Amino acid sequence: MRLSRYFLPTIKENPSEAQIVSHRLMLRAGMVRQSAAGIYSWLPLGFKALKKIEQIVREEQNRSGAIELLMPTIQSADLWRESGRYDDYGKEMLRIVDRHEREMLFGPTNEELITDIFRTYVKSYKDLPLNLYHIQWKFRDEVRPRFGVMRGREFLMKDAYSFDIDGKGARAAYNKMFVAYLRTFARMGLKAIPMRADTGPIGGDLSHEFIILADTGESEVYCDASWMEADVLKKDVDFTADLQPLVDEWLSKYAATSEMHDPAKCPVPAERLRKARGIEVGHIFYFGTKYSKPMNAQVAGPDGAPVLVEMGSYGIGVSRLVGALIEASHDEAGIVWPDAVAPFDVALINLRVGDAKCDAACEDLYAKLQKAGKDVLYADTSDSAGAKFATMDLIGLPWQLVVGPRGLANGKVELKRRRTGERVELSVEEALNRLLAPAS
Amino acid sequence: MRLSRYFLPTIKENPSEAQIVSHRLMLRAGMVRQSAAGIYSWLPLGFKALKKIEQIVREEQNRSGAIELLMPTIQSADLWRESGRYDDYGKEMLRIVDRHEREMLFGPTNEELITDIFRTYVKSYKDLPLNLYHIQWKFRDEVRPRFGVMRGREFLMKDAYSFDIDGKGARAAYNKMFVAYLRTFARMGLKAIPMRADTGPIGGDLSHEFIILADTGESEVYCDASWMEADVLKKDVDFTADLQPLVDEWLSKYAATSEMHDPAKCPVPAERLRKARGIEVGHIFYFGTKYSKPMNAQVAGPDGAPVLVEMGSYGIGVSRLVGALIEASHDEAGIVWPDAVAPFDVALINLRVGDAKCDAACEDLYAKLQKAGKDVLYADTSDSAGAKFATMDLIGLPWQLVVGPRGLANGKVELKRRRTGERVELSVEEALNRLLAPAS
Repeated sequence: MRLSRYFLPTIKENPSEAQIVSHRLMLRAGMVRQSAAGIYSWLPLGFKALKKIEQIVREEQNRSGAIELLMPTIQSADLWRESGRYDDYGKEMLRIVDRHEREMLFGPTNEELITDIFRTYVKSYKDLPLNLYHIQWKFRDEVRPRFGVMRGREFLMKDAYSFDIDGKGARAAYNKMFVAYLRTFARMGLKAIPMRADTGPIGGDLSHEFIILADTGESEVYCDASWMEADVLKKDVDFTADLQPLVDEWLSKYAATSEMHDPAKCPVPAERLRKARGIEVGHIFYFGTKYSKPMNAQVAGPDGAPVLVEMGSYGIGVSRLVGALIEASHDEAGIVWPDAVAPFDVALINLRVGDAKCDAACEDLYAKLQKAGKDVLYADTSDSAGAKFATMDLIGLPWQLVVGPRGLANGKVELKRRRTGERVELSVEEALNRLLAPAS
Repeated sequence: MRLSRYFLPTIKENPSEAQIVSHRLMLRAGMVRQSAAGIYSWLPLGFKALKKIEQIVREEQNRSGAIELLMPTIQSADLWRESGRYDDYGKEMLRIVDRHEREMLFGPTNEELITDIFRTYVKSYKDLPLNLYHIQWKFRDEVRPRFGVMRGREFLMKDAYSFDIDGKGARAAYNKMFVAYLRTFARMGLKAIPMRADTGPIGGDLSHEFIILADTGESEVYCDASWMEADVLKKDVDFTADLQPLVDEWLSKYAATSEMHDPAKCPVPAERLRKARGIEVGHIFYFGTKYSKPMNAQVAGPDGAPVLVEMGSYGIGVSRLVGALIEASHDEAGIVWPDAVAPFDVALINLRVGDAKCDAACEDLYAKLQKAGKDVLYADTSDSAGAKFATMDLIGLPWQLVVGPRGLANGKVELKRRRTGERVELSVEEALNRLLAPAS
């Protein structure tokens, strides 16, 4: 994308309304604009980051065997009366009356709707296990929306729902999501630690929060130092195998939120105990028949008798992750995107637009990088070099490829790694090779 | 995808609530389920078709130079008061009051919100032209939602908004969308004919509806026979060039809705005039300063003086297209997907699951087709051959690759083209080559 034809409305000053760094940087980098309290428009750069994150979530859900569908945002109140949650949910639920005076709502979550779909079509244990997910906008009418997309009212969530014939099957479904979540966050360059959680209003028997570490995190967490070195992606996972040993292995490493952490009972010796701030990015629940019972979601079991299905639900805050990633990865100059979720792979910076040699070299690099599948933001505007560097540091693309008349006279360009600040002078050929190497 | 692990709840009987063929077939093929009047859940097969269509729309918008962002579904009523449309819109607008008694609404369209984004950031004519689009769910509270996703209340729309310094620029923006729309629908295998349209409640000076021909269409249209042979994709388009000659060439072919068609004035000789039924799938408008004026969206012109921007808006009904495509392409046995939008490319049918040779041949074909980038639905269930054929005809994937013990004994499989019904016996190797040929 040529910056001259893009829409990247960056802001120099720190916006006064932003209390946390991710919100500040997202506004400054022209990623989002608040259109109403807790409701954001995703400007092109923010939209691209959101889509990259969404795609990783999708790929790992699919890999685990979950199947994607899409439920609507507006739901009928009737289903929520069946489960009993219409009254329980309180003011966080955005309630709507349509032109025919029917009570509707903007879905804050989808247990009821997916259970209704399930009971309509699935009649036999032979069709199980089944895990259905969607990635859809939700609405929760928070009293005080704040922290930008970290706690907005309209937010994008991936929510999966598993259906099994018995507790054993449900546990296997839970384990798949557990491992898929570890992989999902690791692929984004995040260290997400599963912590046993209170099941809260969703209810149920078993639940883990996935919490990433960031200095600016919302809560305090404790964990064994071994989490710091853990490499989730080291070995491939066979999702058709029994995952219990793998889950047990991960759960054997201590991790607890401050509410669950009891220093007197902590099994980790002090020198191995790490205290940090954390941000919740995912939450998984096994809740048995909490919804299948009131909504009568049952299938014929092996002996023909009806059995209520055992369910779980599994959420990832997709739009929240954009903020969380920035909280976990930024510096004084701006955002530092992990490679896998960066909105563009490379910033190509032309230091002298209008200079025939600089322009030609940039056009050539732009074409070659794009042909090789790289997503390039080409700074082809007449802004000063300083302004271009500041903008590119602010929006935090992993690489900056800098083309100027002086270097070019010697056949050189400069390649900067945003994360480390390391700069190297390379021939055009070498720079291309570096950017197109599998590791980059 | 293995059918045994998929969620494809097909229905044998014709559902009584469906009045038109696309609605009937979408319900029968397990593509959608109505969750409330005019509100649908997109089951996995329907979701995949929707995504394929969305992606073609996106690619052609990007090709034309439009930039994607994402505005929220819930908007503040205040912006609509600025444009004067809050009262004009009537009961079709889904109005909402949040917990703080603020008036909100579920966006039926986004002229106001995008104009607000524009005026916030864009201050100079140098930042023009600009065309911003998004693909987002909209809500229109129809009195009588019907015809399935063709006239639902919650629907997915692509809407683009162009901003230009003068009428000439706006006309150029309009022409880009005009040509992008021709390409978009042609890529989906549709013949979409632009027809001069009434500008209706959006107002403005210039407008075209894009109408596809289908026997079951909602309105009557007339066009020159040359439209039948027109090949929009024959030549590549340079979107940076002046597109007026190209647009004029297309508009020189007669086409009119029944409201606009006057037999007495029609320039087409009777033998070349075609009468058909049509379905609207896109609509483009140039409306000048209709929104920029009340909302004060102006930029500094070349002489420094403020200029109200000239705007256009451009919609494609993405979810409606799923229905429209089926209306345009089906037969007695079910849906007949054009290749580009089929939810899967190939149905791989194992006639004797459990037979070692059939299973091995299928697994091999499944792996090879997927490796080559084909999206395959592998019918690996124990259903009868007849049931499998009926299901695959119903869901309408372009190719059926049939593997049975008898053929396999002679090293043969059968390849069926869904559209023509043509079947050929081929060696496994030949069948693969046929499916992986660039034309297929």
